[in-house]
Amino acid sequence: MGIRVGFIGLGTMGAPMAMNIHKAGFPLIVYNRTRSKTEPFARLNIPVASSPREVAEKSDVVICMLTDAPDLEQVLFGKEGVVEGRHEGLIVVDMSTNSPEYSLEFHRRLRELGVEFLDAPVTGGDKGAREGALTIMVGGNRNVFDRVKPVFEAMGKVIIYAGDVGSGQLLKLINQVVVGLNTLAMVEALTLAKRTGADISKVQQVLTSGMGNSEVIRQLMPRILSGDFKPGFKASHLRKDLKYVIDLATKLNTPMPGVSILLQLYNALVALGLGEEGTQALIKLYDTLTRTQA
Amino acid sequence: MGIRVGFIGLGTMGAPMAMNIHKAGFPLIVYNRTRSKTEPFARLNIPVASSPREVAEKSDVVICMLTDAPDLEQVLFGKEGVVEGRHEGLIVVDMSTNSPEYSLEFHRRLRELGVEFLDAPVTGGDKGAREGALTIMVGGNRNVFDRVKPVFEAMGKVIIYAGDVGSGQLLKLINQVVVGLNTLAMVEALTLAKRTGADISKVQQVLTSGMGNSEVIRQLMPRILSGDFKPGFKASHLRKDLKYVIDLATKLNTPMPGVSILLQLYNALVALGLGEEGTQALIKLYDTLTRTQA
Repeated sequence: MGIRVGFIGLGTMGAPMAMNIHKAGFPLIVYNRTRSKTEPFARLNIPVASSPREVAEKSDVVICMLTDAPDLEQVLFGKEGVVEGRHEGLIVVDMSTNSPEYSLEFHRRLRELGVEFLDAPVTGGDKGAREGALTIMVGGNRNVFDRVKPVFEAMGKVIIYAGDVGSGQLLKLINQVVVGLNTLAMVEALTLAKRTGADISKVQQVLTSGMGNSEVIRQLMPRILSGDFKPGFKASHLRKDLKYVIDLATKLNTPMPGVSILLQLYNALVALGLGEEGTQALIKLYDTLTRTQA
Repeated sequence: MGIRVGFIGLGTMGAPMAMNIHKAGFPLIVYNRTRSKTEPFARLNIPVASSPREVAEKSDVVICMLTDAPDLEQVLFGKEGVVEGRHEGLIVVDMSTNSPEYSLEFHRRLRELGVEFLDAPVTGGDKGAREGALTIMVGGNRNVFDRVKPVFEAMGKVIIYAGDVGSGQLLKLINQVVVGLNTLAMVEALTLAKRTGADISKVQQVLTSGMGNSEVIRQLMPRILSGDFKPGFKASHLRKDLKYVIDLATKLNTPMPGVSILLQLYNALVALGLGEEGTQALIKLYDTLTRTQA
């Protein structure tokens, strides 16, 4: 349990993930740009670093759980960034969702500086993060993966070694295709239900008991029905992931009409100013289109 | 257990449903246009009627599990049809998926002849039908529902009284929105996986363990991966259901971009001559578009 872990990015997902690392007994140091999010850690006497550089200096493994590639680049290569605190044996793990191309690029740049890199995005939602029940998909060198594996096991239940750098992200993007379109399925079904005056409690009973059942229905439909649009996963983040999917599909001449229209719908949702809400806020776009009260 | 049950339509879903009624001890008589499908019943000494009229004469409840409204109309009102065998207390139950409008029309025409009607579509797939684990959504008179309920319980695990005639079908159409779009989700994810060379066994592990998990993934993805395109539920039937959804949505000025594109994709699948395969054959349309081997 001697691996010293640094955790950067204590958002909806990152905070409970870091907390599970602490609970598993790993020495932990945390950093977050918005300082207030470090308070629950400080109260437990977990050291709070003043920069990503300090995190790197005091850790064997630095885990990043950030929004997108530009944030990651800033944290890694910016002023007072992780690479300024690099040392022999340092491993950087990106657990945010990025495109496989970005992972390859970060990997290349870090390798030149003697730093190892794994891409290790997750699925399971904020519920999975809190319960230490995430699915973690890891790309990168196999030996490096083996060294970090005990730390992954503190956060997740299913740990998948996906292959070379970028292949964790690829599995994640494939997963997001399903999560995104299953969300669309739920939202269009609920819209039809509202517009036809169907009994919503009976709709919920049907959808959770037959061929329509899904993790998205189980986790997000109760939130919609109780008016809870807090992000388990932000709509703007899903929008970003869908854009990476379409970028990749276009590069590979692969038509994906479903994801394509889904990206446009999330573009509209962001245009409505709802990107910071949870992915389930897609229902609000449909409510707007049909002038229906949520 | 004295309710005499007549069962018309012994297809992929109907045959196991009728068999479960027999196993539950109800007196049963069956009819199917293609006579060969009645043979497993004849071997168990279950009477096989020579017409829907004869089924009606010898039953208290006639269950129809057919493809579409024109078939149902023929069985009910055609030559040697159910209404020719009508008698005091006869109940007709349509367990196929139809539009709520058709249910209302059949109900009106049967009521004029003194015959009760319930619409009672199901979800759960052929697996649910075989295991007596269907979800059954029932519209119609509450007292009539109560009389037939023990028969439903022989076929299903979750029996939902949905409300007036047509409301069972409405719940089913809402369910089909989810099932259809979840199928699209699986197919686009698999297509991206194939085109990027991702490890399919790892994709399956991810999709069945995180936020992407769904009954569609659990039941249909193994069939695709083993090359099994036999219909649990026929593509042409889902196409019909999606058309009813779009008809209803258009009548209600309700935009459903996801289902709309899905209907067009199933139109293309039927155009490719694949309508008689299972809904999972949608992957073949994508394989065709990308010249990928299944």
